[in-house]
Amino acid sequence: MMPFMMRLQEAIRSKGTPLVVGIDPHLHLLPDCLLRRWSSTGGDPFQWISEAVEEFCLSVIDRVAPLVPAVKVQSAFFERLGPLGMVVMGRVLSSARDHELLVICDVKRNDIGSTARGYAEGFLGSEGESCSPDQKWRKSDDESAFQTLPSPWASDAITVNPYLGGDSLDPFVQVAERSQAGIFVLVKTSNPGSKDFQDLDCSGSPLYLHVADKVEQLSIATRGSGPYGVVGAVVGATFPKQVAELRARMPHTWILLPGFGAQGAGSDHVRAAFDARGSGAVVNSSRAILFSFRNSPYADHYGEQNWQDAVLQATRDSIEQLSLN
Amino acid sequence: MMPFMMRLQEAIRSKGTPLVVGIDPHLHLLPDCLLRRWSSTGGDPFQWISEAVEEFCLSVIDRVAPLVPAVKVQSAFFERLGPLGMVVMGRVLSSARDHELLVICDVKRNDIGSTARGYAEGFLGSEGESCSPDQKWRKSDDESAFQTLPSPWASDAITVNPYLGGDSLDPFVQVAERSQAGIFVLVKTSNPGSKDFQDLDCSGSPLYLHVADKVEQLSIATRGSGPYGVVGAVVGATFPKQVAELRARMPHTWILLPGFGAQGAGSDHVRAAFDARGSGAVVNSSRAILFSFRNSPYADHYGEQNWQDAVLQATRDSIEQLSLN
Repeated sequence: MMPFMMRLQEAIRSKGTPLVVGIDPHLHLLPDCLLRRWSSTGGDPFQWISEAVEEFCLSVIDRVAPLVPAVKVQSAFFERLGPLGMVVMGRVLSSARDHELLVICDVKRNDIGSTARGYAEGFLGSEGESCSPDQKWRKSDDESAFQTLPSPWASDAITVNPYLGGDSLDPFVQVAERSQAGIFVLVKTSNPGSKDFQDLDCSGSPLYLHVADKVEQLSIATRGSGPYGVVGAVVGATFPKQVAELRARMPHTWILLPGFGAQGAGSDHVRAAFDARGSGAVVNSSRAILFSFRNSPYADHYGEQNWQDAVLQATRDSIEQLSLN
Repeated sequence: MMPFMMRLQEAIRSKGTPLVVGIDPHLHLLPDCLLRRWSSTGGDPFQWISEAVEEFCLSVIDRVAPLVPAVKVQSAFFERLGPLGMVVMGRVLSSARDHELLVICDVKRNDIGSTARGYAEGFLGSEGESCSPDQKWRKSDDESAFQTLPSPWASDAITVNPYLGGDSLDPFVQVAERSQAGIFVLVKTSNPGSKDFQDLDCSGSPLYLHVADKVEQLSIATRGSGPYGVVGAVVGATFPKQVAELRARMPHTWILLPGFGAQGAGSDHVRAAFDARGSGAVVNSSRAILFSFRNSPYADHYGEQNWQDAVLQATRDSIEQLSLN
C-alpha cells in the first residue's frame, strides 16, 4: 500500500477535486422525515436515534462516494449516542472503505505517550486479517505484544491535538508510518476562539507557528522520497491570512481545511493552501452539504423528502465552487 | 443532586483520602492468567480481549470501591478495541456508578463549539429516565431539541483539552452546570514533552498560566456560593514547582493530579496542590495500583494469580503514602 498522502493525492487526481465531505450528523439537523420514521419504532431512544443516524450517514456516503476522494467522520456525534453510537460509527467507517473512499476520522485525540499509542493503534491502519496475539502476549510486559492486533476503526487518517507536546505526537507518527496512515495535527482551528491560545505571542511568534514548525519537522522526517510526510495540519479556512502563512511555513505538510461552506469560507479563502502544482491540501465541507435541504436554494428545489438529492447537488456545487480556484 | 465538586469533597471526606484509582487497562500489562483464560475461548480477538479487559476492570472496581472516592477511566484503552471496547467502557462506567464511586472519564476531548456540545452532552450527566424527544425534534433546526436526551456515558466529570480556545470550553461548562457535573481542563500535563508548548513564554508568562487564568475565570463564574466552580484543572504531579504555582494562581479551581506512583511523583510532590483546609485536589494513580502484581514488593507477596489482592494492598499503601502529607 502507498503512503496515505500519496493515496490522497491519487484519489484527488482521480476524482478531480480536493473536496472532502464531512460526516457530521448533528442530531437536531437530521431530516425530520427520517427521525419520525425511526422514532415510530419506539423503544430505547438511543436505539432508534442511532438507527436514524446510520441510515443518514450511509445514504450520504452512497451519494457522495463517486464524486469525492475522502470523507471526514466526526466522532463526537456518534459518541453522543453512547456505545450504540460507536457501533454505528464503526459501520459508517466500514461503509466508506467499502465505497473506496479514504477515511479521515476527526477525533482530535491525544494523551501522554503510552496512552496516545492506544488511540493511534486503535484508529490508524487497515482491518487486515485478525491476527492471533495469543502467543505474543506471553512475553509479559512487552509493549509490542498487542501491536499485531489490527485497527478496529481502520481509518486512513485521524486528527490529533498538539497541546500535550512532541512526545504525545510521536506514537501517532510511528503508528502512521508503520500502517501507511496519516495524521492531521490541529495548528490553527476555524473557530473564533482559536485566537485565545493559538494566537498568543510566544517569543515573537504566535503559538500556532511553534506548532506548525513541529509539524513541518515531523513531516520532513517522514517524507522519504516524496514531497510530503505522514503528518498534516488542520488550518481553518476561515483565516485566509494564516492559510497563506502556514502554507509557506510548512512546505512538506498537507493541509486539511475545515470551515468551507457553512462556517463562511469561500474558494478564495482556501486558494493559498495549495502548492505550486495545485496539490497539498484538502477542503472539508460538512453542514453545507449534509443539511443543504434546509437552506436556499436547495430547500425550494428538493424539500426535505428529497434530502439525498440535495446532498448530491450541494456536493456537485461545492466541487464546482472549489474548481474556480 | 449537589454540584460535582461538592460531591467530590464529600466523598473524599467520607473515604478519608483524595486518592483516585485510574482504570487504565494497558493490554500488554494485564495479568497473563486472565488473558490466557479468555484467549482459550478462541474466536475474534477483539471479543476475547474485550472480555478480559471487562473482567479486569470490574474486579479492580469491586476491590477499590470501599476505599476511594472516585475512579478515573481512561478511554484510549477501550477505543483501542473498537466498538466492542466501547461497549465494555459503558459497562465499566456503569459498574463504578453502581459501586457509588464518582466517575471521571479521562477522554481529553474537545472540538469547535457545536461539536464540543456533542461530547459534553454525551459524557456528562446522570443516566436518568430515558426521555422521549419524539415531540421536541419536530421543532426543526432547534439545537436544544436533543438536550433532554440523557448522557449515555453518564460520567460525573471528564477531562478537556484547551487548545481550541474559550468558545470550545463553553459548551462543556454549560452542560456541566446544567447536569451537576465537572470538567478538568488540561493545564500542565505530567509528561516530559509538556514543556514543548505549555511552557512557551507567551508575553512574559508560560502558556499554561494563560490557560490557568481562563480556567480560574470559568471556575469563579460557576462557583455560586461554594468555594469551587465546575471547572477543574489537570496539573501533573511530576512538576511540583508548577503544582504550587498553579494552586496559588487558581484558588477556586479543583486540581486533578496525574503522575503519582508509576510516573515518579511522591506525596511531597502533591502536597502543594491542597488548599489551607486540605481540600481542593485529587491525586490519581493508575499503573502503580493496577499492575502492582508485576512489581516489588507486591510481585513476591502475591504473584500474578493473586493480582486482585495486590491491587487492594497497593491501594491501601497509596492511601497511606498520601496521608503522610
